[in-house]
Amino acid sequence: MAQLGENGYGKSRVRLVKVSRREGRHELRDLTVSIRLEGDFEEAHVRGDNRDVLPTDTMKNTVYALARQIEIDAIEDFARALATHFPPENPVVNRARVTVREQAWNRIPVGGRAHPHAFVRGSDELDVATVTAEGDDVRVESGIDELRVLKTTGSGFEGYPRNRYTTLRETSDRVLATAMRVRWTYGLSEISHSEIRTRAREIMLETFADHDSRSVQHTAYAMGEAVLERCPEIDAIAFSLPNKHHLLVDLAPFGLDNPNEIFVATEEPYGLIEAIVRR
Amino acid sequence: MAQLGENGYGKSRVRLVKVSRREGRHELRDLTVSIRLEGDFEEAHVRGDNRDVLPTDTMKNTVYALARQIEIDAIEDFARALATHFPPENPVVNRARVTVREQAWNRIPVGGRAHPHAFVRGSDELDVATVTAEGDDVRVESGIDELRVLKTTGSGFEGYPRNRYTTLRETSDRVLATAMRVRWTYGLSEISHSEIRTRAREIMLETFADHDSRSVQHTAYAMGEAVLERCPEIDAIAFSLPNKHHLLVDLAPFGLDNPNEIFVATEEPYGLIEAIVRR
Amino acid sequence: MAQLGENGYGKSRVRLVKVSRREGRHELRDLTVSIRLEGDFEEAHVRGDNRDVLPTDTMKNTVYALARQIEIDAIEDFARALATHFPPENPVVNRARVTVREQAWNRIPVGGRAHPHAFVRGSDELDVATVTAEGDDVRVESGIDELRVLKTTGSGFEGYPRNRYTTLRETSDRVLATAMRVRWTYGLSEISHSEIRTRAREIMLETFADHDSRSVQHTAYAMGEAVLERCPEIDAIAFSLPNKHHLLVDLAPFGLDNPNEIFVATEEPYGLIEAIVRR
Amino acid sequence: MAQLGENGYGKSRVRLVKVSRREGRHELRDLTVSIRLEGDFEEAHVRGDNRDVLPTDTMKNTVYALARQIEIDAIEDFARALATHFPPENPVVNRARVTVREQAWNRIPVGGRAHPHAFVRGSDELDVATVTAEGDDVRVESGIDELRVLKTTGSGFEGYPRNRYTTLRETSDRVLATAMRVRWTYGLSEISHSEIRTRAREIMLETFADHDSRSVQHTAYAMGEAVLERCPEIDAIAFSLPNKHHLLVDLAPFGLDNPNEIFVATEEPYGLIEAIVRR
Repeated sequence: MAQLGENGYGKSRVRLVKVSRREGRHELRDLTVSIRLEGDFEEAHVRGDNRDVLPTDTMKNTVYALARQIEIDAIEDFARALATHFPPENPVVNRARVTVREQAWNRIPVGGRAHPHAFVRGSDELDVATVTAEGDDVRVESGIDELRVLKTTGSGFEGYPRNRYTTLRETSDRVLATAMRVRWTYGLSEISHSEIRTRAREIMLETFADHDSRSVQHTAYAMGEAVLERCPEIDAIAFSLPNKHHLLVDLAPFGLDNPNEIFVATEEPYGLIEAIVRR
Repeated sequence: MAQLGENGYGKSRVRLVKVSRREGRHELRDLTVSIRLEGDFEEAHVRGDNRDVLPTDTMKNTVYALARQIEIDAIEDFARALATHFPPENPVVNRARVTVREQAWNRIPVGGRAHPHAFVRGSDELDVATVTAEGDDVRVESGIDELRVLKTTGSGFEGYPRNRYTTLRETSDRVLATAMRVRWTYGLSEISHSEIRTRAREIMLETFADHDSRSVQHTAYAMGEAVLERCPEIDAIAFSLPNKHHLLVDLAPFGLDNPNEIFVATEEPYGLIEAIVRR
Repeated sequence: MAQLGENGYGKSRVRLVKVSRREGRHELRDLTVSIRLEGDFEEAHVRGDNRDVLPTDTMKNTVYALARQIEIDAIEDFARALATHFPPENPVVNRARVTVREQAWNRIPVGGRAHPHAFVRGSDELDVATVTAEGDDVRVESGIDELRVLKTTGSGFEGYPRNRYTTLRETSDRVLATAMRVRWTYGLSEISHSEIRTRAREIMLETFADHDSRSVQHTAYAMGEAVLERCPEIDAIAFSLPNKHHLLVDLAPFGLDNPNEIFVATEEPYGLIEAIVRR
Repeated sequence: MAQLGENGYGKSRVRLVKVSRREGRHELRDLTVSIRLEGDFEEAHVRGDNRDVLPTDTMKNTVYALARQIEIDAIEDFARALATHFPPENPVVNRARVTVREQAWNRIPVGGRAHPHAFVRGSDELDVATVTAEGDDVRVESGIDELRVLKTTGSGFEGYPRNRYTTLRETSDRVLATAMRVRWTYGLSEISHSEIRTRAREIMLETFADHDSRSVQHTAYAMGEAVLERCPEIDAIAFSLPNKHHLLVDLAPFGLDNPNEIFVATEEPYGLIEAIVRR
């Protein structure tokens, strides 16, 4: 006999652009929101009884309506407002999880000054916040997606095990490139998520730049250690780091050397290194 | 103080095309393989000591070398061969997980006969198999990605709760479209994964077509129940179903009715319904 | 001094799904429409006077309204209905170009019969029709996008010029794969575009399969020649053929041979071969 | 009878990363190169005779070999070096067209200083240069792809023609967003392409920001006019501007107003406005 196991549902990719029209200067927030509710939805699945199924269309409307009523500062706060909105209003819901992603826009400089209402797109890097509300328990996770970095030296990969399928050559000097997906959680509440985000990002970039990397794993751990050391509010940080291989082109057939200068950037296959660093 | 938490690494998106040159007829397999190893990699992370870090490049080579040596029948078998290859050869590895995806190609019909070596691409649907090997324990999960289906009637959504943010209209007749991501696990071993895959897919499609759907949840459960009933080898099945909304276009401003005939297909936002059905 | 040169505008990617509810059997058409108008729009550009600028939003509405009022058979006919709609209604417009793309859906087989209203997605291949209306002159171009084909033998590439940057090895037996973009025009009007489309596609596939290919160029010409020979209504056919390279994997380092069996499929770089064949 | 019409071929998406290791400071160039040759290739198409068909693989090798031998400054210069390389070496080639795209990377700031060898990815904006060499005639076209801009006010769309399919409301204040594709050509040679690129981009951004826009067409022309006025080296500039619609969300059903504050960003359909401005 069949029975319902874990389940949940919601609305994904709700695209919200909010313009706050302050005097002489507009603020622009470009957000994408996803909502997921969990709870006792057995009647809906088994019998097709929708009496407890809040439509995902209503979730979408709620995003827009709350965005109008709430001042959006840190994306963590907006995610929290949404996540804690749903359970009290929907008795069968026992857990709500909301993710907010933000796309950065920079003010266009005109005559040396940042323009009050015209913007040019930043990088594809996305700020991310996920808030999970379950009864009185509210957990916040912050992060960044697509933080793309590359260093042209200060990275090697040597001393690894060899077997009959090994062809890779050891190198003490290679290009290291990745598109970081990072997530961190907090040991404290009552904190400024925006300020910690700025600091954590800066520490990761600086560590990536200055670290004498012996592997992607080595760099991941070094970044995590540095963040934990200098961000006491953070209690754990998780990295997912695709190794975007840059292969040295063999120019010898053309009578040319290649002193770590000419590379082909490849998309697939890629290494994928994942690690959590905790206190 | 920092310490290493959960971690793992591997090679993703290894693209393998294997041609088996049988007499008068070539077989074509178009596979994408991802490998992930877990184990005791603390030295690598903390100290940059790579002595236990099998290069992901070697994993890639292993895929190609094993593909040459093994006859590939069910993708589950190839995933198993790879997953069980790594732990015995790499003492610090205690878990290996391998995912194989297959893209279908159909033989070109020429003069009423299937051509022996020319193919035309099938749909974007992908067969998927993931095998996790941990000591003597080998778990197999099978599935399908991007199984896109649409029905033009036989689907409604009514009787849902209303609140101040509700604008959706109830309907007893709508377009239902999704791109299924399905995964199932087995209660038996010693089975033909290919045969079960064919049967499970057929049951899901038939149930999707014939079911009188009151919601995506209702359809998900019905498909799961039908698969469990008719595939005794399967012990649980998980669905991830984006609701690809087709919105009825309001033609009234143009003096036209729209008796469920003209729709705009939208990409975002989308509902996302997820459920597991178990024995 | 600045002056306005060539210009035009319109609406792109209007997503239209039309369901025709015939007795006991629904027809499904999944179309994407793009419209472009050209004419005398100098006032709009230079002075910001919009009196002649039909909003692209109105173009979108027109697609939906006409789709309700017209029976859609060949996509060429729907493109023609739209292209010839705009100029008479908009005096400054002297040319309208409309492109319609169709995504195929197949009926789900249930109990051996094609289901009357449930569908599963076909391949990513798209049927395309572009109609350009300019005064009384109406030109029709038909085509196919993303017609993906692959043959595992019957293709070589030899006898090419060599220079100091040559490293490619000659081969009399390679995998040939492409994703065809094809366009053809007609020397006759009053014809069945659907029937010719079916025939042209079949001829291209059969020629691709059976041709003894010495290069992508050679195959392109052979397909064009065959289509012109067997489709007297077509007067020219254009091919754009990315050479989707499948590289033989070197297994020698592992003590294995590779008799054209194990390939890595690559996405970039790719060759791109383009040719028109005319009467 | 069939005959060969216009044709050409080449290599697309050759991915080149060049690191120039200057003292204490590495320069990073992230380029994607496409090459297309035209000439008398009839024998190759009709008879499969490859004696004049320079392999696209050799073109790829040439990109890497020349990148090693040439200092890459403006991408126009690298495109020119490639475009003028092929015809003299390949007698049947009468035209070579080379496009180089550059992806920007910014130096990671560490301790207030730009890092000498670590970089973080810039926006998805791409610098583009296309050089066409035909005999002694060498034409240079420069441009930018995906220059994404948005302004939150200073844009309207009013006074347009209305018909029975009009539902759009006039507005004197809307969000204007686009992802510019721009191309320009030169009336002078012997110029600094890099310097003109910087200036043209700045002028376009400033004009976009400050212009009182009555339509996308109006803004396109204004940007073109400003560039021609302040860049005497440029003789024509072409814009392709998708209108990335931001729709005002109707909050009235929730008892809320929406004073141009809450928008939904949409991907499709989109307006597409194209215009050339010349001297």
